[in-house]
Amino acid sequence: MAVYTQVSAEALAMFLERYDVGTLVSAKGIAEGVENTNYLVETTGGRFILTLYEKRVDADDLPYFLGLTEHLAEKGLPVPAPIRDREGRALQMLNGRHACLIEFLSGVSVSAPTAAHAREAGETLAGLHRGAADFDSQRANALSLSGWLELAASLGGRLGEIDKSLPDLVTQEMTVLAENWPQGLPSGNIHADMFPDNVLFSDSSISGVIDFYFACTDMLAYDLAVTHAAWAFDDEGALQPGIGETLVESYHSHRPLSDEEREALPTLCRGAALRFLLTRAYDWLNTPADAVVVKKDPMAFARRLLHYHAA
Amino acid sequence: MAVYTQVSAEALAMFLERYDVGTLVSAKGIAEGVENTNYLVETTGGRFILTLYEKRVDADDLPYFLGLTEHLAEKGLPVPAPIRDREGRALQMLNGRHACLIEFLSGVSVSAPTAAHAREAGETLAGLHRGAADFDSQRANALSLSGWLELAASLGGRLGEIDKSLPDLVTQEMTVLAENWPQGLPSGNIHADMFPDNVLFSDSSISGVIDFYFACTDMLAYDLAVTHAAWAFDDEGALQPGIGETLVESYHSHRPLSDEEREALPTLCRGAALRFLLTRAYDWLNTPADAVVVKKDPMAFARRLLHYHAA
Repeated sequence: MAVYTQVSAEALAMFLERYDVGTLVSAKGIAEGVENTNYLVETTGGRFILTLYEKRVDADDLPYFLGLTEHLAEKGLPVPAPIRDREGRALQMLNGRHACLIEFLSGVSVSAPTAAHAREAGETLAGLHRGAADFDSQRANALSLSGWLELAASLGGRLGEIDKSLPDLVTQEMTVLAENWPQGLPSGNIHADMFPDNVLFSDSSISGVIDFYFACTDMLAYDLAVTHAAWAFDDEGALQPGIGETLVESYHSHRPLSDEEREALPTLCRGAALRFLLTRAYDWLNTPADAVVVKKDPMAFARRLLHYHAA
Repeated sequence: MAVYTQVSAEALAMFLERYDVGTLVSAKGIAEGVENTNYLVETTGGRFILTLYEKRVDADDLPYFLGLTEHLAEKGLPVPAPIRDREGRALQMLNGRHACLIEFLSGVSVSAPTAAHAREAGETLAGLHRGAADFDSQRANALSLSGWLELAASLGGRLGEIDKSLPDLVTQEMTVLAENWPQGLPSGNIHADMFPDNVLFSDSSISGVIDFYFACTDMLAYDLAVTHAAWAFDDEGALQPGIGETLVESYHSHRPLSDEEREALPTLCRGAALRFLLTRAYDWLNTPADAVVVKKDPMAFARRLLHYHAA
């Protein structure tokens, strides 16, 4: 969300010499992504995103993330391809950080998605799942059932500081989900964080899906559930009618859901809502009050959870 | 230095309809400028900077800043022109903030300027002074002698928290400068903050001078002194031989300095070093320790001050 690692023009110009991308024209630090440093870089050869990976990303995961996006981009999916240097390397070191030069994709993220946007999102998500089917690396989902248990435990008794209702809600949901979490559904490599701000639209079609830094191997229908939780509600967690249904039916028409997946979807949606509730609660309780970072309200996902619970 | 005010793609697309600049293609919040929110905006018609003015800028000063940059840009100087909408307005309101769509200029800021860069800077600064000579608005320099006195007083006894030597150094310099501050030198509209990070180079020539939000009416030679203090030392305040002399001689060959200006230059440089020492000290003492904003070391300007003092 900010520029944590400064890269001078001199260092950047030298870095770009590793690549066949022309010479530096312009560079602006941009406020984007999950706690990484990002520059929008223009060269005589084109435009790129330069990402420097900060502490929150595990360097051991980077080959998986970059490999997956390269795999998807090669299939023509709207995913930013990592750029390889003259020696074929995508992953680099720059200013003491792991770094990657990445294709720049045009487009803007919508803040209030319509059903038409959700239709595009469902189609694209199905396309990503189909495209990733023959990607041969795997990464366990650290933010699934056991990860939530750990996260909830690490918050200790502090959930009540956010809202009195939270400790009971989380305990109850964790119990229900632990007993009912689906097994044996089709799995693959999933984005796991396809919120509207990670999707770029050009006019009315999707020109980019970005920020694959939560990508992992898990149930495909769980990715659809995450996307449902991300798109079908407004910022405060109020349901926006028609969006979720359109998303699911659009996905289904491009990657048909089995009866088992359909049946599991409400449970998966509860899990997705709990996942973001817990990570937001963690950030809420651990971000200094005067930090520049915008804290996102965990209660917006508590409201989603109650919605899925009641549905 | 961050995105303080979020502008959704929907709001931005609607805002751009006021202008004859085409439709929205891409928008990225950028980490640039003096506590304003800046977006790098691409439309079907070109690229622009969208600035939303946050609390630190006095809205009453905006017509002066925008008028001055428009005046200079119209003369072909490398200054980003404010864009006027279909009704001729440059200054707008957006999301509750004063805002302006501004020409995007390519180029990168150098971190370690060479004498060749300083030669360009001297020529460009002289050009700005000549170009602004017939600009008919004025703005008092709030950060000159009386402003420094106020700032020093507002810091109370806290300067010693930064370094034991600072209280005496500041008191002594304030006294000397109050007695010797030049009067009657040629005045005009000056940039007053032309640090290397406010100057964009394309290859080896200047393609942009940005961030006019400290511009004011003051002695032209004081602007040269600020630029000297900004360019002739490294980040820690160590003199970089040859840079300052080149800057001054390049300026002189494009806007000849009078004998009085030459004679006053050492005093003006001491004033410039004190000005940035005091504002950095203020920020140092008033920025929360865990804020994302990078605090700049006031002692780098104490070292400059001692250099000018000894010279």
